Amino acid sequence: MDKFKIIGDPLPNIPWEDKPNNCKEIVWRSKKNPIIYRNAIPNSNSIFNSAVIPFKNGFAGVFRVDDKSRNMNLHVGKSKDGINWEIEAEPIKFNCDDEEMANSSYKYDPRLLKLGDRYYVSWCNDYHGPTIGLGYTRDFNEFYQLENVFLPFNRNGVLFPRKIDGKYLMLSRPSDNGHTPFGDIFLSQSPDLIHWGEHRYIMGTTDGWQSTKIGAGPVPVETSEGWLLIYHGVLTSCNGYVYSMGAAILDLEEPWKVKYRTKPYLLSPQKDYECVGDVPNVVFPCASLYDPATARMAIYYGGADTVVALAYTKIDELIDFIKENSLKEVLNVN
Amino acid sequence: MDKFKIIGDPLPNIPWEDKPNNCKEIVWRSKKNPIIYRNAIPNSNSIFNSAVIPFKNGFAGVFRVDDKSRNMNLHVGKSKDGINWEIEAEPIKFNCDDEEMANSSYKYDPRLLKLGDRYYVSWCNDYHGPTIGLGYTRDFNEFYQLENVFLPFNRNGVLFPRKIDGKYLMLSRPSDNGHTPFGDIFLSQSPDLIHWGEHRYIMGTTDGWQSTKIGAGPVPVETSEGWLLIYHGVLTSCNGYVYSMGAAILDLEEPWKVKYRTKPYLLSPQKDYECVGDVPNVVFPCASLYDPATARMAIYYGGADTVVALAYTKIDELIDFIKENSLKEVLNVN
Amino acid sequence: MDKFKIIGDPLPNIPWEDKPNNCKEIVWRSKKNPIIYRNAIPNSNSIFNSAVIPFKNGFAGVFRVDDKSRNMNLHVGKSKDGINWEIEAEPIKFNCDDEEMANSSYKYDPRLLKLGDRYYVSWCNDYHGPTIGLGYTRDFNEFYQLENVFLPFNRNGVLFPRKIDGKYLMLSRPSDNGHTPFGDIFLSQSPDLIHWGEHRYIMGTTDGWQSTKIGAGPVPVETSEGWLLIYHGVLTSCNGYVYSMGAAILDLEEPWKVKYRTKPYLLSPQKDYECVGDVPNVVFPCASLYDPATARMAIYYGGADTVVALAYTKIDELIDFIKENSLKEVLNVN
Amino acid sequence: MDKFKIIGDPLPNIPWEDKPNNCKEIVWRSKKNPIIYRNAIPNSNSIFNSAVIPFKNGFAGVFRVDDKSRNMNLHVGKSKDGINWEIEAEPIKFNCDDEEMANSSYKYDPRLLKLGDRYYVSWCNDYHGPTIGLGYTRDFNEFYQLENVFLPFNRNGVLFPRKIDGKYLMLSRPSDNGHTPFGDIFLSQSPDLIHWGEHRYIMGTTDGWQSTKIGAGPVPVETSEGWLLIYHGVLTSCNGYVYSMGAAILDLEEPWKVKYRTKPYLLSPQKDYECVGDVPNVVFPCASLYDPATARMAIYYGGADTVVALAYTKIDELIDFIKENSLKEVLNVN
Amino acid sequence: MDKFKIIGDPLPNIPWEDKPNNCKEIVWRSKKNPIIYRNAIPNSNSIFNSAVIPFKNGFAGVFRVDDKSRNMNLHVGKSKDGINWEIEAEPIKFNCDDEEMANSSYKYDPRLLKLGDRYYVSWCNDYHGPTIGLGYTRDFNEFYQLENVFLPFNRNGVLFPRKIDGKYLMLSRPSDNGHTPFGDIFLSQSPDLIHWGEHRYIMGTTDGWQSTKIGAGPVPVETSEGWLLIYHGVLTSCNGYVYSMGAAILDLEEPWKVKYRTKPYLLSPQKDYECVGDVPNVVFPCASLYDPATARMAIYYGGADTVVALAYTKIDELIDFIKENSLKEVLNVN
Amino acid sequence: MDKFKIIGDPLPNIPWEDKPNNCKEIVWRSKKNPIIYRNAIPNSNSIFNSAVIPFKNGFAGVFRVDDKSRNMNLHVGKSKDGINWEIEAEPIKFNCDDEEMANSSYKYDPRLLKLGDRYYVSWCNDYHGPTIGLGYTRDFNEFYQLENVFLPFNRNGVLFPRKIDGKYLMLSRPSDNGHTPFGDIFLSQSPDLIHWGEHRYIMGTTDGWQSTKIGAGPVPVETSEGWLLIYHGVLTSCNGYVYSMGAAILDLEEPWKVKYRTKPYLLSPQKDYECVGDVPNVVFPCASLYDPATARMAIYYGGADTVVALAYTKIDELIDFIKENSLKEVLNVN
Repeated sequence: MDKFKIIGDPLPNIPWEDKPNNCKEIVWRSKKNPIIYRNAIPNSNSIFNSAVIPFKNGFAGVFRVDDKSRNMNLHVGKSKDGINWEIEAEPIKFNCDDEEMANSSYKYDPRLLKLGDRYYVSWCNDYHGPTIGLGYTRDFNEFYQLENVFLPFNRNGVLFPRKIDGKYLMLSRPSDNGHTPFGDIFLSQSPDLIHWGEHRYIMGTTDGWQSTKIGAGPVPVETSEGWLLIYHGVLTSCNGYVYSMGAAILDLEEPWKVKYRTKPYLLSPQKDYECVGDVPNVVFPCASLYDPATARMAIYYGGADTVVALAYTKIDELIDFIKENSLKEVLNVN
Repeated sequence: MDKFKIIGDPLPNIPWEDKPNNCKEIVWRSKKNPIIYRNAIPNSNSIFNSAVIPFKNGFAGVFRVDDKSRNMNLHVGKSKDGINWEIEAEPIKFNCDDEEMANSSYKYDPRLLKLGDRYYVSWCNDYHGPTIGLGYTRDFNEFYQLENVFLPFNRNGVLFPRKIDGKYLMLSRPSDNGHTPFGDIFLSQSPDLIHWGEHRYIMGTTDGWQSTKIGAGPVPVETSEGWLLIYHGVLTSCNGYVYSMGAAILDLEEPWKVKYRTKPYLLSPQKDYECVGDVPNVVFPCASLYDPATARMAIYYGGADTVVALAYTKIDELIDFIKENSLKEVLNVN
Repeated sequence: MDKFKIIGDPLPNIPWEDKPNNCKEIVWRSKKNPIIYRNAIPNSNSIFNSAVIPFKNGFAGVFRVDDKSRNMNLHVGKSKDGINWEIEAEPIKFNCDDEEMANSSYKYDPRLLKLGDRYYVSWCNDYHGPTIGLGYTRDFNEFYQLENVFLPFNRNGVLFPRKIDGKYLMLSRPSDNGHTPFGDIFLSQSPDLIHWGEHRYIMGTTDGWQSTKIGAGPVPVETSEGWLLIYHGVLTSCNGYVYSMGAAILDLEEPWKVKYRTKPYLLSPQKDYECVGDVPNVVFPCASLYDPATARMAIYYGGADTVVALAYTKIDELIDFIKENSLKEVLNVN
Repeated sequence: MDKFKIIGDPLPNIPWEDKPNNCKEIVWRSKKNPIIYRNAIPNSNSIFNSAVIPFKNGFAGVFRVDDKSRNMNLHVGKSKDGINWEIEAEPIKFNCDDEEMANSSYKYDPRLLKLGDRYYVSWCNDYHGPTIGLGYTRDFNEFYQLENVFLPFNRNGVLFPRKIDGKYLMLSRPSDNGHTPFGDIFLSQSPDLIHWGEHRYIMGTTDGWQSTKIGAGPVPVETSEGWLLIYHGVLTSCNGYVYSMGAAILDLEEPWKVKYRTKPYLLSPQKDYECVGDVPNVVFPCASLYDPATARMAIYYGGADTVVALAYTKIDELIDFIKENSLKEVLNVN
Repeated sequence: MDKFKIIGDPLPNIPWEDKPNNCKEIVWRSKKNPIIYRNAIPNSNSIFNSAVIPFKNGFAGVFRVDDKSRNMNLHVGKSKDGINWEIEAEPIKFNCDDEEMANSSYKYDPRLLKLGDRYYVSWCNDYHGPTIGLGYTRDFNEFYQLENVFLPFNRNGVLFPRKIDGKYLMLSRPSDNGHTPFGDIFLSQSPDLIHWGEHRYIMGTTDGWQSTKIGAGPVPVETSEGWLLIYHGVLTSCNGYVYSMGAAILDLEEPWKVKYRTKPYLLSPQKDYECVGDVPNVVFPCASLYDPATARMAIYYGGADTVVALAYTKIDELIDFIKENSLKEVLNVN
Repeated sequence: MDKFKIIGDPLPNIPWEDKPNNCKEIVWRSKKNPIIYRNAIPNSNSIFNSAVIPFKNGFAGVFRVDDKSRNMNLHVGKSKDGINWEIEAEPIKFNCDDEEMANSSYKYDPRLLKLGDRYYVSWCNDYHGPTIGLGYTRDFNEFYQLENVFLPFNRNGVLFPRKIDGKYLMLSRPSDNGHTPFGDIFLSQSPDLIHWGEHRYIMGTTDGWQSTKIGAGPVPVETSEGWLLIYHGVLTSCNGYVYSMGAAILDLEEPWKVKYRTKPYLLSPQKDYECVGDVPNVVFPCASLYDPATARMAIYYGGADTVVALAYTKIDELIDFIKENSLKEVLNVN
């Protein structure tokens, strides 16, 4: 694939299914969906909106598991093939100096990325309201919790896979203290992962499937065309929220500049496991795997706030699609 | 069928399926439902709430197609049998003198009727809020857009198939600028299809399935008993709106007088394609075909704001049913 | 006053007080405010938002009187000087063919203008929701009610003082069925005062004092610079609505084009009789008198939905002020 | 079963299905679910949230039937095996001295218990708002209506199966006049089933599945460990309410003291007939049958406000489960 | 005064001011208003909505005092003339067996009446939500608290001054857990002041000043024409609630029958101490004194939720006024 | 004053009026209130919620001025005595590198403090929603704008007057994008005034006057007893928000620990200039001056979102008062 460059480690064992012959979509679902059922571990009410990453010879993940009290927590999972997962029955226990900070009454919607020898986890953490929790592990066994990134109320905090201009970067979606009916994506910068500033607005709601709120999904992927960002958008029907998946390309060096952004969605809730469940009509991407050599990408997303599902795309074709189907009026790059 | 007279052109090729033996309902579903799937054309997210009419040897229609940006627009469709439809990939482009008026950001929920050699389309049109757009075609190829009928905020504008007292008549449901939680049906009159007045209240909400709002469905059918009006009614459950189908009979000469009106619904969302989709629990009728000689009627309705479905009834039996199951206290005829 | 032309009959006996020396405002209050108290007639709870017009040697008016049941109705008033008013104890009884239409449960916020030998009254009328009622009198004794102008929900209907292109024109503010939290001004056209169409958007909310909704006030005044329109704008504070007064200049021949529009308000609730009363913080203009020769204008407005107050301006200076203090980005004229 | 004592009449013919081998839940569903379909009688839109009781050699029940007008009413049903039911086509007509009281516009969500030779029915009754209706029958043929128990607004009134301290006891959930977004369980006492007082708070919302409101389900079961109370809890997702089932153990002599209460739910909406229907995502228990000798319990619950479903448990194991999985911080017993 | 009979003890020392000559109202304000200022005791934020009663040679009262924490509590007050009051600095401490019941976090809006040798106080009491608290004193020194009368949510509980058919009677207004936007008056009956039942709907909202909610004010006065009930009604303006005062006459033996009810209000917020304060625009009557021989009545009401004010009327004239200005359509007596 | 130590520069020329003899309050109003009227400069609608600081031989200030478009901006003011102010007609123009950041559509509610030779201003700044803007001046002539401190949505950002542990500290109140109905005070830390983290919850709402939201007022004052923090609290009445003033003492070295906090308010809206205006019932403190030697403190606060008012206290007596009138259960210090 010479068209343009995708930055990242080779991942020849990426989960993969070729696009069906009759499929005309740029993103297609796994035939094995949902790959993780709601009752996959004894005490789970649902498993969804989860993060995975290559680990050793296979894959590791941090999974959102709501138990039968409907408490939300993070669990480690392991897989050889990225499709069949063993999820631990007990939630992650983070080591944390400050007891009050560690005592979050919930943890949900994790993202995962590797920086040096650390696997960083960011998630929605309770500290007198939802905000962005941050922690890391080196081995998916011992986990350490850092300071909360922002003041409440915030959700969907996603780190960039490398520093820019010597700063760590995090995407987030400022929220309120309920089922937030608004939401734009911002970028914040930090010299030390503790103190954050130089906040920049990236993009907001437009119309259609992304008219109520939007939020970053998987960790952005670096390419020669810019940062590939898969995100979710929400539409408010007369019977509630509908969550779909879209994508944008951000400027490589000034990632608060949006070069392209999909006008149509890439995937919307249409299958039973996306339309029926604890929250009907939700497609919520939280992680992706990709193999630079083949441009294959596997996108993990939650279905109906109940199960984990998997979809595929080719990064080169996806980037072409984003460019050809881009919104124009809301881009903030000249 | 001598019982009473149904006004209209013969339609021997009306789509038809006899009532199943064990069915005790007055309106029954097609076994081929949904007759149009959400992805029936390449770029569609959903196709529903659409209008059809006899045209040449077969049928033509104006279809509500929401694309994958979730923009709402009108598309022409053609069919030989009224069941299998070819829908055009591109939306209708209306010829319109006034550019600002033509630039509606959405068009949805069309109705169709023939007056003279013109096929009139009315729909919900954006002009600083939802209002009633009006246009016509002679050939389903060239379309012309007229002035918006009303000030915003309005929806479900339905023309009568002939003038009364020298005036055109239109039903509509005054609304607000959101997911309107109220709605009654009014009648307005016009000498020229441009200027409208002499507004009359026809009927409003009562209880049960029609307690939140009601709106006209297909173009009324003239019979010797009065105008047969199929309409939708909405109930608000703790988890959202539920749209069902009912019917009324309006006075022939003074159609703002309601002679009969169904207390029970005729059809409510009970099948998967009515209960699961972009908006769960919606049955929304927009068009009907009928054959006066046999009293057969085919009703086209949207399911779950996602697909087009088809139901059948016999007009004579339906009228009997309406009379026998009529509300009493809310009728405005002495 | 040669600067530009003001169209209208001479009114040398217009109520008038010179601008106080230390006053730097373009519109100043009468020292006699409020000129009509809430209990001015035996059964009144409040008198406000009312219309006046030159009549015979003095002035006549149609007054909004809320009685002690808090029912809203229209009363005739007479005055020799425009300041001291005799208001009739009984509400106006309109002659109307259609009993249902006449039986409005409320009438409020009247406007008055003369066309030929008729004095037309427009007001907010109940017909299954608020809409625009229309009637006329020749003598302020016998009143006749015409068809309601629009479908509900509408308020603040104001006629133009002459036809343009052979059509009557009416401004209005489409509303909802409650304390409407939105509102733009539209223009509609009619050949006969019965049927209305060719609706055009004129102007909407912007920010500050006019960020929630706006509505036309007195009947527009024709000048060589365009139509002078005084209107109200509403801001939503954390403790409710605040109504202020502004002005715009509309194109003479195409009055849907806004040439100028005040960025600052002309008058906002600052006096006790504007800040304290049945609805705190309301300045609501409904009528003006003016004398073309001297450019004097007297503006009648409601204070706190409780009393009638009076303010003055000079039309020539006001037009200069509007031009110099005009919003730019929201004008719809090229 | 010697572990502890269950008070009640033998019921060897209780409906029963053994727990499936691979099932690890404490409550399991019948394989015959839904046992009553929405259209089980000619005019029904739905049948759900209903009460059953042993009667003669079989079972009798009072069923909530919403008809096709979506009116809610109570119907008698009979069954030999508790699974196959014959439901009467006509609603129960209560004998009542006071006509105004009898004219409730709806009746729903009945409970049933036997006291002496009377079978008492309590339900949600309309008397200027929802409140608790109370009546009885001796034969499921003639029914008598008593005074409404409480002032509106109230729902989920459930009588205790015996007097304590010479008083009748009733659980209820004070409500508002809509789709109440709050709700705790209280206990009230009466010497005569007419006058009620000595109200005591029992338990309220906590978090997770029971964070929005809770309400008593079937009539409490007396055991040597205390009163076994099965109840429903509601969580508010961004797309609406989710109703699940839990259980508590109340002190035998002072039943306003909560000894144990489940932190996890016992059953939540996961099957199609619980997730899809007139109100998606509802599991709503209203009645139970039990056999003291075998500790078998059959729980009848409504699915999606559309159908009747059945689940099973063993009382002894359930009580152990409740103790082992009890909330601690919200119990009001020392 | 022979016109009709007023039941009650003579009260020649009733506070009194003759109606001003120019006053045409049926109820007129004291010139000494407000008779109790907000800061009348050291720690008070406001004193309003309070109850008074003849006691020994003068008067005693139970006053709602909100302290500077804005906690709401009841304080004893004494007066020789009913106008100048000494209010105790410390709130009333009720003797109560049940500690949980006594620990109400607030007490407000008391009413007072004498039954035998006991002075009963009813008020709005917190027990997991607002409900009706009940207590008594014999000497305004020692107070005893009884069981809460109703389940929450309730407010404005007012006892009748004698039993009817051997039962105590209480008026109340079922509410919700916030600033309730609805409210009708009901009657409940009790053999023992502990257990309550036989609830009857008395009257509800109509339009104008009493369109949002209504609630009983002072203890009803027995006359040969029926029970004279002064009550408050609430209108919702775009800037909040407006509380006014009205009156009704209930049937003597069947007091749930409303014989007459004022269409206009008797008093509405028009004075500064009624329009400006912690809650603008509130007139809230809680108590009255009357002298049967002279038909004089003194009505105590709260102004703007901040001060206590006093108004006067003559009972005979008031009853005539109520009859002559009565609503017709909403009365429930034949 | 030896009781304890107050840190700060001498301010012998502090504005001062002795406490009136009959006043028993700990904080008393200036007799000159309001010290700045709404129309103090030609284009102002209102001047309120402003900050002052000793400067040269007198005082300087940054004033919130809403102009007659109701745009909100910051203006410099100067005064010799702290009571009579000259406010500049033009708003402050901040020098700022990033144009997008500088283009805030509003600036309001400033605070001022001196750090080294810089006077820092923090305010509520628009950057895709309200957040905390930060800038400085050395001379009240040239102003420089720094990075926004936080992501939106935030308000009431207040810096500490010195670093602790080498970090700058800022209090703030996370908000939403409207008239936020909730709000707690947090503390954030920064090494450079650009990047912020280590967020700590300080205190939240309790009941009464501070039950809806609370926010920091003037810059905290350092004393040997801890940081003296004056703040505002909000109660929601049925007619809107009521803003009062309270105070807390924070631990000197760990200022996220609250040692004492007033249960009663210090000042609530009771005067006309606090109760009547653009937002009725607002007392909103933004700045204080104090003289350590005499313990005199002058508190500047906004009245009714319309004017600037002044109140006085003695710091030593205030601290005693806070200790003696402290809430207990919500303090987070052991």
